[in-house]
Amino acid sequence: MSRSAKYVGQEHGEHLAAKTPPGSFYTDAGIFRREIEEFYYRGWLNLGREEEIANPGDFFTREVGNESVIVIGGTDGRARAFYNVCRHRGTRLVDAAEGTKLRSIVCPYHGWTYSAEGRLVGAPHTEDLVDFRKEEIGLHEIPMDSWGGFVWANLDPGAPSLRDEFDRFFSKFDRFPIHDLRRASRQTYEVDANWKILVENYQECYHCAPVHPDLNRITPYLTGEVHDYFVDGASRAPFSGGWMEFAKDYTSMTWSGYTNRPFLEGMTDEDRHRVYYYVAFPNLFFSLHPDFLMIHRTWPVTPTHSRVECEFFFDPATMARPDFDPRDAIEMWDTINRQDWSVCERSQKGMMSRAWTGGRYSDQEPQVYDFDRYVRERLGLQ
Amino acid sequence: MSRSAKYVGQEHGEHLAAKTPPGSFYTDAGIFRREIEEFYYRGWLNLGREEEIANPGDFFTREVGNESVIVIGGTDGRARAFYNVCRHRGTRLVDAAEGTKLRSIVCPYHGWTYSAEGRLVGAPHTEDLVDFRKEEIGLHEIPMDSWGGFVWANLDPGAPSLRDEFDRFFSKFDRFPIHDLRRASRQTYEVDANWKILVENYQECYHCAPVHPDLNRITPYLTGEVHDYFVDGASRAPFSGGWMEFAKDYTSMTWSGYTNRPFLEGMTDEDRHRVYYYVAFPNLFFSLHPDFLMIHRTWPVTPTHSRVECEFFFDPATMARPDFDPRDAIEMWDTINRQDWSVCERSQKGMMSRAWTGGRYSDQEPQVYDFDRYVRERLGLQ
Amino acid sequence: MSRSAKYVGQEHGEHLAAKTPPGSFYTDAGIFRREIEEFYYRGWLNLGREEEIANPGDFFTREVGNESVIVIGGTDGRARAFYNVCRHRGTRLVDAAEGTKLRSIVCPYHGWTYSAEGRLVGAPHTEDLVDFRKEEIGLHEIPMDSWGGFVWANLDPGAPSLRDEFDRFFSKFDRFPIHDLRRASRQTYEVDANWKILVENYQECYHCAPVHPDLNRITPYLTGEVHDYFVDGASRAPFSGGWMEFAKDYTSMTWSGYTNRPFLEGMTDEDRHRVYYYVAFPNLFFSLHPDFLMIHRTWPVTPTHSRVECEFFFDPATMARPDFDPRDAIEMWDTINRQDWSVCERSQKGMMSRAWTGGRYSDQEPQVYDFDRYVRERLGLQ
Repeated sequence: MSRSAKYVGQEHGEHLAAKTPPGSFYTDAGIFRREIEEFYYRGWLNLGREEEIANPGDFFTREVGNESVIVIGGTDGRARAFYNVCRHRGTRLVDAAEGTKLRSIVCPYHGWTYSAEGRLVGAPHTEDLVDFRKEEIGLHEIPMDSWGGFVWANLDPGAPSLRDEFDRFFSKFDRFPIHDLRRASRQTYEVDANWKILVENYQECYHCAPVHPDLNRITPYLTGEVHDYFVDGASRAPFSGGWMEFAKDYTSMTWSGYTNRPFLEGMTDEDRHRVYYYVAFPNLFFSLHPDFLMIHRTWPVTPTHSRVECEFFFDPATMARPDFDPRDAIEMWDTINRQDWSVCERSQKGMMSRAWTGGRYSDQEPQVYDFDRYVRERLGLQ
Repeated sequence: MSRSAKYVGQEHGEHLAAKTPPGSFYTDAGIFRREIEEFYYRGWLNLGREEEIANPGDFFTREVGNESVIVIGGTDGRARAFYNVCRHRGTRLVDAAEGTKLRSIVCPYHGWTYSAEGRLVGAPHTEDLVDFRKEEIGLHEIPMDSWGGFVWANLDPGAPSLRDEFDRFFSKFDRFPIHDLRRASRQTYEVDANWKILVENYQECYHCAPVHPDLNRITPYLTGEVHDYFVDGASRAPFSGGWMEFAKDYTSMTWSGYTNRPFLEGMTDEDRHRVYYYVAFPNLFFSLHPDFLMIHRTWPVTPTHSRVECEFFFDPATMARPDFDPRDAIEMWDTINRQDWSVCERSQKGMMSRAWTGGRYSDQEPQVYDFDRYVRERLGLQ
Repeated sequence: MSRSAKYVGQEHGEHLAAKTPPGSFYTDAGIFRREIEEFYYRGWLNLGREEEIANPGDFFTREVGNESVIVIGGTDGRARAFYNVCRHRGTRLVDAAEGTKLRSIVCPYHGWTYSAEGRLVGAPHTEDLVDFRKEEIGLHEIPMDSWGGFVWANLDPGAPSLRDEFDRFFSKFDRFPIHDLRRASRQTYEVDANWKILVENYQECYHCAPVHPDLNRITPYLTGEVHDYFVDGASRAPFSGGWMEFAKDYTSMTWSGYTNRPFLEGMTDEDRHRVYYYVAFPNLFFSLHPDFLMIHRTWPVTPTHSRVECEFFFDPATMARPDFDPRDAIEMWDTINRQDWSVCERSQKGMMSRAWTGGRYSDQEPQVYDFDRYVRERLGLQ
C-alpha cells in the first residue's frame, strides 16, 4: 500500500472500487430541491453566535433556501428563531442582516407588531374578525439550540434534538473553551459551484499539493488521521473529520507557520501539532487550530451556485492584547479559500459534459466517498 | 364595531372570516401564464391617449406580455391598433416607443410595406406566390376603442365591447372633462413584485399610516367610502373603488395639501373634498383629484416582477398659465409610489416562505378580499 | 415570372406555396435541445485552423453547447480533439482560449496529468484502486479531421467521415489554395436571436437592398446563381450555396468595391466577378471573395441567443507586403454583420407573438425554405 494519510476505520477501502456520482448529482434542479427540503429544511443549521443576541433586541437574519430566519434576544433573557414573515399578509419583517435594540418587530406594511418573544401585540382593525385571537397567531417559531456559543436552528419541528444529532461531534471539542471565543472576522464568498462540491473539497487534502502550496508546506497532505466518516458503527452520523499535522515545529496556519498568539486553553501537547477539520452536516465546516477556530457555513443558492461565510474566532484575552493582529491567519486562509473556490468552479463546469459519467476516488478520498454515499442514501439515489 | 372607513354594500363582511391566498398565488409560473392569457390577452387594456395619435402617422407602441402592440393614426382620421409583427417573416416592425409622421410602416428586414391603416401595400418578389393576395394579409388588427380621451385595446377579437365592460365605471366620471385633460408627466417604475400585490396595495389604505405619513395627514385612512368591489349586484364587474376625504380644508394631494390650480370643471362641492380611487381591471388605476387626474398602468413581466407607468393629467387652460408647476403633486406621488413599491417588494419576498400559508384580512381590506376572490373565481382557483 | 436571381435546380418552386415555420421553431426549449443533440453533438463542426495547432503543445479550446473541447498538437506531429474534462473528478482542465507549449495537460485540481496525446501519465495515489489501469482511461477523444487547413470535429464517434459529409462541397473549392491562407482577423459577436435565424439571414439577399445599401451597390441582390440547397438529387446534403456577382468592374467587397490586393491563386476570369457564399451545416458560413476568404461560425447558446465568430483569411504573400491593410474589407463586413444581427434580433422578437403563426417565403428565398425544410425533416417536425 502506498504511503498515505491514515484513514482509521476505513481499511475496508470501499472507495477504492467505487465510482464518483454522475454530473446530474451536481446540476439537476430536482435533486437540488430535494436536498434543500431534506437537509437544509430538516437539518440543524449553524446560524451564528450567542453573543450576537445576548441582549434583548439583539438580532440577526439568515437566508436559508427561500426562507429568511430572524434570531432575536427576548426580554426574558432567552433568544428565539422565527420565520421572518408577518402573519397578516406575509411581508418580510426585517431586512437588516443584524442589529440591536429591536424591542418589538413592527411590520413595515400595515404595522402589525410582535414582541421580541414573537407574540402578536398589535394588529389594528382586527377586533371584528371571526376566529381571530391575537394570542394564537404569533410569529412562527423555529426550534433553536446552542453549543459552544453557536446558535443552531432546525426548520423541522419534528427533528431530533441538536444533541441527539451531534453529541459525538460535540464531545470531541468539549474540552476546549469554544463557548468563550469571540469573532474577529467574517467574509462572505459567492461560488459558482454546487454546495456538495464545496463539502467534497473540504474533506480531502489530495488537492493540497497542486492547489495550496503554502498550506501543504505547513501541514503536508500525507500527515494526519481521519476517524469519522458519516458512519457511526453500523449507522450513519451527520459528521465527518479528523486532523492534519504540522510539519517541523510549526504551530499555526499562518504565512510563516508560526504565531505569537498563545495556544487556546485545553490544547494538549498532541493538539498543539494538529489542525482539526470537521464537517457537521449540512452547513458547517469546523476547523480548530491551536490558537484559533475557523468556521465555514455553506448556503446552497442554486444547483450551480453557493454562498459561503467564513469566520474566525480567537480567545478574548488574546484579542485584548495591544499586539493582536489576526491577519497572518485570516489573509492566508482567504488565499486558500479562493484557491478552493477556483477549482470547485472548474469542477462544476465539467459536470455539464456528456462525456462525464463519473470518475474514480483516489485512495486519498475516502471521506469524499463517504459523504457522497451519505447524501445519496438519504435521498434514496442509488 | 370599531371605527373605520365606510364600506358600503360590504356589510356582509365576508372578508372578516376569510383567509388570504397562499404564496403560490403570487409566485407560480403556471398561474402567472394563465393570468396573462385570461386577463391581459382577453381584457380591455388602457394603452395611452387619443391625442398621442391624433394626426395621421402619429404612433406609440406598448409591450403586453410577450406582445408588442402599435397604435397608429390612419390617413382616414381613424386610429387603429395592430400586432407589431411583419406578415412576411415575423419581424418586429417598429422599435420606437412613440413618434410621428409614420405614413407607412416599412419592415426593416425585407422592406414589406404597410399603410398606416395596416394594408400591405408593398411586398417585392411576391408576384408568383401561390394563393397570395396582398389585400388579404395586412397587419393583424386589434380591437380598439376609447373613453375619456384614453385609448383601450383588447387582444381578444371576441371580447365584449369596451362599453359593455366598463359602462358603470365610465358613468361615474362622465361629468368630468377627462377627455380634454392633457398629460404633464410620465414615469415608469420597475417593481419586484407580482402585479396582484400592486393591485391589492392600491385598494386599501390600511397601510397608509405606517407607510405614507404625508398622504395620511392629508387624507386620513379612516375617511371616505367604498361603493364598488368587483361585484355588480349578483354578478362580477371588472372594477372597484370609492373615495377618500381631505382632512381640514385641504384641496389636493400635494406636499402642503393645497394648490393654486383651479378645480377641474364639473367638480361639485362634494367632489372638491375627495380623491376618487378606482381599479379598472386588469391594468388601470384611476385616481381623480380635484385639480388633476393620476393614472397607473400595471404590466406583469414575470410572476415576481412588474412594470408600472404613472401619468398625470391637468386642464390645458391651467397648464397654459405662466405659473403652472405640477411638481408639488408629481413629486409627492413619486414619494408615495416608491413607498408602495418598497412594501410590495417585501410582501413578495415573504410569499416564497414555506411558513406562509395565507393570512387574514383586517376589517380595512374588504376590497383586497374582493379583488382576490374575483381573480380566483375567474381562474377557477378555489 | 418577375426578374430575380437565378435559382438553378429550384424551378419546381416549392417555396412559392409554402409557409414559414411557426414561432416555436425559434423559441421552444425542447426543439433547441434536440437541435444541439442532433446537429451540434452529431455534426461536423468547423473549430479552427491547423496552423493554430501545428506545433506540439499548441492548443485552442471551443465551447459547444454545454461542452468544452480542447484541440491540441501532439508530440507525434498529429493534433487531436478531446473533451476538456478530467477523468478523476470531472474538472475543466484548460480554461485558456488558446496557447502554446502545453506539453502535458495537468488538472489544476488534483494534478492528474495527461500527455498532449491524451494519455493519463500521472495519477498519484491510485496504485491500490480496483480495476483501474491508467492506460485505459485517457482523455475522451473526439473524431477530428481537416480540409483546406480547417480543423473539424464531430462529437459523435459513429458519425460518417468528414469527406463523406462534405465531399461535394469541398470539391467546389479544391482548386483554391484555401489551405495556405492565414488568418488576419477574428471578431466574436453576441446576438439575441436563434441560430437558425442567422442561417436563414445568410441564405438570402432579399434583405440586401433595405438592410445593406453598401453591399447591394457592389453586388446587387438580383445577380448571381444558386446551385445547392441542402438537396443532392433525391437526397439531402448538409450544405447550400451559390454566388453573387459584382456590379460594374468591382473586384472585392470593400467600401470602394476595389482592392489593391492580388486575386487569390486559382481565380478564373469568371471567379473574379463573384463572391461565393456557402453554408456547411450546422456551424459554418464560407464566403470566398476574389482576394480573401471570410468565414462565420454560429454557436447556439440558448433558444434566443447565439454567438458568432467571424474570421478573415488572406494569402500570406499578400499579408507580407508592406502596404497590406485589410481594414477596407474587415470594417465593411463588420458593418454588414451588425446590420444583419440587428434585423435578426428584431425577427426573433416577433417569434414570441401569438399573432405569428408563420408567413410566406418570397420568390427570393428558396434557400431559406430548403434550410427550414432540412432542419424540420431531420428533427421529424412536420
